[in-house]
Amino acid sequence: MSETHALASYVVNSRPEDIPADVWHEAKRALVNYVGCALGGSHEPAVDIALRALTPYAGAASSVVLGRTERLDPLFASLMNGISAHVHDYDDTTPKNYGHLTAPAASALFAYASVHPVSGRDFIHAFVLGFEASSRVANAVYPAHYDVGWHMTGTAGVFGAAASIGKLLGLDVPQMVWALGLAATQAAGLREMFGSMGKPFHPGRSAQNGYTAALLAQAGFSAGVHGIEGPRGFAAVLAAASDLSKVTTRLGEDFDLRANTYKPFPCGIVNHPTIEAAIHLHDTHGIEGADIAAVTLRVAPLVLDLCNKQHISTGLEGRFSVYHGAAVGLVRGKARLQEYTDATVNDPVIRRVREMAVAEADTSVTEDQARVRVTLRNGETHEHFVVQSIGNVHRPLSDRQLDQKFRDQAILVLPETQVEALLEQCWRMDTLDSLTPLLDAAVP
Amino acid sequence: MSETHALASYVVNSRPEDIPADVWHEAKRALVNYVGCALGGSHEPAVDIALRALTPYAGAASSVVLGRTERLDPLFASLMNGISAHVHDYDDTTPKNYGHLTAPAASALFAYASVHPVSGRDFIHAFVLGFEASSRVANAVYPAHYDVGWHMTGTAGVFGAAASIGKLLGLDVPQMVWALGLAATQAAGLREMFGSMGKPFHPGRSAQNGYTAALLAQAGFSAGVHGIEGPRGFAAVLAAASDLSKVTTRLGEDFDLRANTYKPFPCGIVNHPTIEAAIHLHDTHGIEGADIAAVTLRVAPLVLDLCNKQHISTGLEGRFSVYHGAAVGLVRGKARLQEYTDATVNDPVIRRVREMAVAEADTSVTEDQARVRVTLRNGETHEHFVVQSIGNVHRPLSDRQLDQKFRDQAILVLPETQVEALLEQCWRMDTLDSLTPLLDAAVP
Repeated sequence: MSETHALASYVVNSRPEDIPADVWHEAKRALVNYVGCALGGSHEPAVDIALRALTPYAGAASSVVLGRTERLDPLFASLMNGISAHVHDYDDTTPKNYGHLTAPAASALFAYASVHPVSGRDFIHAFVLGFEASSRVANAVYPAHYDVGWHMTGTAGVFGAAASIGKLLGLDVPQMVWALGLAATQAAGLREMFGSMGKPFHPGRSAQNGYTAALLAQAGFSAGVHGIEGPRGFAAVLAAASDLSKVTTRLGEDFDLRANTYKPFPCGIVNHPTIEAAIHLHDTHGIEGADIAAVTLRVAPLVLDLCNKQHISTGLEGRFSVYHGAAVGLVRGKARLQEYTDATVNDPVIRRVREMAVAEADTSVTEDQARVRVTLRNGETHEHFVVQSIGNVHRPLSDRQLDQKFRDQAILVLPETQVEALLEQCWRMDTLDSLTPLLDAAVP
Repeated sequence: MSETHALASYVVNSRPEDIPADVWHEAKRALVNYVGCALGGSHEPAVDIALRALTPYAGAASSVVLGRTERLDPLFASLMNGISAHVHDYDDTTPKNYGHLTAPAASALFAYASVHPVSGRDFIHAFVLGFEASSRVANAVYPAHYDVGWHMTGTAGVFGAAASIGKLLGLDVPQMVWALGLAATQAAGLREMFGSMGKPFHPGRSAQNGYTAALLAQAGFSAGVHGIEGPRGFAAVLAAASDLSKVTTRLGEDFDLRANTYKPFPCGIVNHPTIEAAIHLHDTHGIEGADIAAVTLRVAPLVLDLCNKQHISTGLEGRFSVYHGAAVGLVRGKARLQEYTDATVNDPVIRRVREMAVAEADTSVTEDQARVRVTLRNGETHEHFVVQSIGNVHRPLSDRQLDQKFRDQAILVLPETQVEALLEQCWRMDTLDSLTPLLDAAVP
């Protein structure tokens, strides 16, 4: 059986009870993280602009756009959800293939759930299948595909949206084969767009395109049946080397959701151990910004290759400044979206600490480690060493840490009581008869 | 200046009077051919299905879908126009890059012209610029890009739609750079889809995606500014080898429209000389099907590799049968869409002639040549040798032959007087103050 056919058969025939409990829980963690990120990004310029440009072309205003009062047809709502979720580069990562694969599938699913009755159980199940489909396609072409310059979130993501929506539409196997083929032939997204709005466009467009693929396949729009493995198919055309066995090996037994990770801080991942150490010092010693007299960072050499910006004026630059990460950690004990605004970067207290910090590259420090030493005006010196930073697959964020990340973002657009109600509904999504109350709670 | 910037500057700054007269005329030929093909394909199952699947998601019913009574928003109308135009594989070809590049640009432009006032002169000008932009991007990555399995019509086509619509929207150079970047990051379309509805989906989707890219760029949605030439851009990622100088060399002086070709018959191009010889015999000798006693074809060996189907029952199979082409040519003196229906393939007179024909591969016959010999029941034998078949760049269809191709297709959906009125308006498009009357005439 070909890979496309095997994957289609698996998605069509999977039952919710086939999903192991730990995977089920990880799916909820991924969705909590996703909804928080979509809310946190929902008022960024990329979303405002896309809404302004494309709303005149949208169909019936039937689907919620997460975090917004506007409604759009479900295809354009998928696009907007995907832009919001990825615009801060704060959503999830599957380290084995560098995909951010929740956004494409979930962005389409939330848009779908506004216009079709779907239980939380079926919703999560469809999400698991979409996530796994896209991650397995990604694994098959990683690393050659990523290395040449494809953005996995766009290219593999479209398979996830097609599989998720196809599952809820009840496609049969031949239709699902077509849906995956129509996904394959829309796979796109260049890393050349990194640093522009084109990057978050990728998960949005892959959500919209995968959703479209499923709708077309359901109606009988045919596609080549070897979209993934054919001689002119996805793997052969978009990767110099591939291992198609990764699409099907232990399908339904191994789940990549188990290896999914969630960023604790909305900035370059190499800054994370420094930020964690700084927050620890703040919390342990009750440090205030005005007390700080000197700061020293000992970090892996790669950190200074990537994030050595010290004299900066924008939030975007702050994401690539290990000094800024140390400063907000020490002064505020936090590194939320609010710590990466232009205002925070130009806050005089933050600026003073950021500019006094000294960073030293140390080859004995790994990229998961950092040592931060702070000297206070009263002469006290405190030091903390992070051995293994939070947020990677070996030390995942706890559910409670995901709650806090969710709250920090949701509060930017929703009142506090609504934040708590929405968070609670996300965690018990599998008990909901309908997604409608959850979606209603995701609108300001 | 980078290639993306140079191409954007050219498109933004070009004036209608900068386009040479012969290119202007060839643009009208391409558009006449395009409109005919879009009408001829407009009631195929691929279009019916796509309309049924996606109309519930479309916006305001403002744009004409060529050949149909339904209207859609201009983005979805672009999609449908592109499917119609390419569904019979009967539209144009630029042999130097194997692109069918009128459909992506023109499909978006006709959809645009339904909702914005645009003169025929500006319309043709925008078409020329879009066609050239896509063909130049195609040239830069041909042949490596095509050989690995990309369908040029989808991948390069999206640049054409973005440039054409961006020109009419009046984008400035930075916006056009973004539009080309958003096109680059949506470039998609796999040859694995050939033989399915996924193939005509490509020009449709590239029209819709290019149009979307231009709208987003106009509103300020940013993209990487090196979408074509960047280290993670279109050429580097989608082609193992490329020559970026082809994007810019003699820009505004050389025009690929001059090398554009139009198929005389809706079937595999290697059958064309045989069909032409058969039609010549029919017309010269007044042959009727019942008179035919024997048929011999001498053809290039490749013809029998690709089109050796003799015992067939569907119109689709007929497209890959040199015997069927000979039969319809001899019996009817025509090889229109009507000769490639299931009904014609199963017509007993056609079947008898098709099945009596004997084909011989002859290495002295080129792929542009064919010799057909027919023996009649009265003992007469007639023979014709085509030295250089019609429709390639060395022996293009005349304007009058394009008229006939247009009529043969348009008559399938429009009354005869409307066919003539529409054809006349296409040829004098450059004198129209508005495309509205032309679009009205393209609706049954």
